[in-house]
Amino acid sequence: MIKAYAAFEQGGELKPFEYDPGTLPDDQVEIAVEHCGICHSDLSMLNNEWGMTQYPFVPGHEIVGKVIEVGARVKSLNVGQTVGLGWHSGYCMSCSSCHSGDHNLCSSAQGTIIGHHGGFADKVRAEESSVVPLPEGLDESVVAPLFCAGVTVFNPLLELGIKPTDTVGIIGIGGLGHLAVQFLRAWGCEVWAFTSSEAKKTEALELGAHYTVDSKNPDEIKALAGKFNLLLSTVNVKLNWNQYVNALAPKGKLHFVGATLEPLDLNVFSLMAGQRSVSSSPVGSPQALRSMLSFAKRHDIEPKVERFSFDQVNEAIARLESGKAHYRIILSRN
Amino acid sequence: MIKAYAAFEQGGELKPFEYDPGTLPDDQVEIAVEHCGICHSDLSMLNNEWGMTQYPFVPGHEIVGKVIEVGARVKSLNVGQTVGLGWHSGYCMSCSSCHSGDHNLCSSAQGTIIGHHGGFADKVRAEESSVVPLPEGLDESVVAPLFCAGVTVFNPLLELGIKPTDTVGIIGIGGLGHLAVQFLRAWGCEVWAFTSSEAKKTEALELGAHYTVDSKNPDEIKALAGKFNLLLSTVNVKLNWNQYVNALAPKGKLHFVGATLEPLDLNVFSLMAGQRSVSSSPVGSPQALRSMLSFAKRHDIEPKVERFSFDQVNEAIARLESGKAHYRIILSRN
Repeated sequence: MIKAYAAFEQGGELKPFEYDPGTLPDDQVEIAVEHCGICHSDLSMLNNEWGMTQYPFVPGHEIVGKVIEVGARVKSLNVGQTVGLGWHSGYCMSCSSCHSGDHNLCSSAQGTIIGHHGGFADKVRAEESSVVPLPEGLDESVVAPLFCAGVTVFNPLLELGIKPTDTVGIIGIGGLGHLAVQFLRAWGCEVWAFTSSEAKKTEALELGAHYTVDSKNPDEIKALAGKFNLLLSTVNVKLNWNQYVNALAPKGKLHFVGATLEPLDLNVFSLMAGQRSVSSSPVGSPQALRSMLSFAKRHDIEPKVERFSFDQVNEAIARLESGKAHYRIILSRN
Repeated sequence: MIKAYAAFEQGGELKPFEYDPGTLPDDQVEIAVEHCGICHSDLSMLNNEWGMTQYPFVPGHEIVGKVIEVGARVKSLNVGQTVGLGWHSGYCMSCSSCHSGDHNLCSSAQGTIIGHHGGFADKVRAEESSVVPLPEGLDESVVAPLFCAGVTVFNPLLELGIKPTDTVGIIGIGGLGHLAVQFLRAWGCEVWAFTSSEAKKTEALELGAHYTVDSKNPDEIKALAGKFNLLLSTVNVKLNWNQYVNALAPKGKLHFVGATLEPLDLNVFSLMAGQRSVSSSPVGSPQALRSMLSFAKRHDIEPKVERFSFDQVNEAIARLESGKAHYRIILSRN
């Protein structure tokens, strides 16, 4: 049996929940969960905001733990190995996205918390393809958030061909943004942090930003017209996106990793004048996860975390909902 | 004196107009205009739709003719050479876009018909940097439209890294679209033409499209979900852009070369799910023009044109306004 915490209804409190996962499939491993981050998408799923939650619902998709059992056909993972698991816990491995190394775009990918029980539990299962060994030397007690928040902001640097000579802005300094600042500083870029919080401006500079901008001050943003090769938006609120497009350099990219629900009312002329683009991407592939972990290790990049024990899961969720978490929350085994 | 046709007020009829261009600047050439295409942007400027027209206004920015005088510092062009001139007649040559080969993104570029008299004239002047020699073997009587319409649709193939293995759709089969179909067929792609006109469907197939789709039939477009690596929009009307985004393959691009005025009300989730992007670009650089001309020659790509003489310029404009031109109009010297 797997001992988990589950919500039994939309927005419900998490309560102890046991389930029998059956025999371990040949292509899966079972992981003893040691640490599990909490992500905004756990909340969105808990509240069924995307209309696809199944109850009982076990959240948790930023998982670090030890392999305790491997399926008969698993070749690359061993019992005792410390591994991580993120948003996806399996891929079809046969579509054009999987064949191209873009497993995160596989339309049949298995979500870790979609029709599958997540990491708010003592154990979790996942297909070999989705489980990434932790390199030696990373602090396993803090890296869990890299498996969703981290790769979500790291992947665009790979995919959009960001160069160390680029000038980049990160819109929103929270769970995702505070990691993006660190990655982009280490990437060699000129890094600007966009936030409306004075406290976060100071912290962004400590994390590696070279400059800060008030994300809600139109005059400050207007003064930066034509500047940025990349603007990475981590927010889920509506901003004046055309103003941000105008802050892009020729061929600059406005890339969304925050799931903003309101349509982007973009002006084609602003895009056309500078050959600019607007794009978005979800998490990253297993290879992007590997590249990120190795990059994070080399550059001493770590999430800033607040820690709760698993039996404090409801307090942890309340803390996340308060918007005051600083910057990411991890549940850890005692 | 240069003998031109100019509008003297917003939307006014074109009338003979003479102007003295003064001494030829050292870095310019003077071209005897033999052929000049008419582009929708000539109309937009004539009607001051973009608020930047100066009257008297001489349209014309798809120019083919012979160099008749070269400035003292001009090195690469000679008197007697057959050349073409497009939307830009000069660049600053010192900004980062010019230094990067992206002259068409130079924010100080000189427009051929913006604060400068265009090609509806016996002569036109332009800086050496913007004038491109015609390769031997192209039919100079039909290629003028390549210098704006042509490069506008060709440039994205270079800039977006379109591969011969890609599946592409061209939205709108008109002056731009009928060239895009030919370029993309020769590029090696699977080519789909989106049009609501039955006649144009037949013609698109003749021009090289493999398949046609009714651009206004939601069911037909819905059935193509996830298919296209590139959708190139040449239209200036509002379509259901989210539906087109959903027709993109993973990493697919919706690229606008038509200047649609209404904002794009894009859904971030549709972009995110497949790591899709939306972008736009204006015309192309001098090097893009050179590449296009050489590609057009190798693949026998030509605009389909209707011909008028320069003294029929008002009839020619009326024909363009009718929307019935088939597909591009050229004014030619008798």
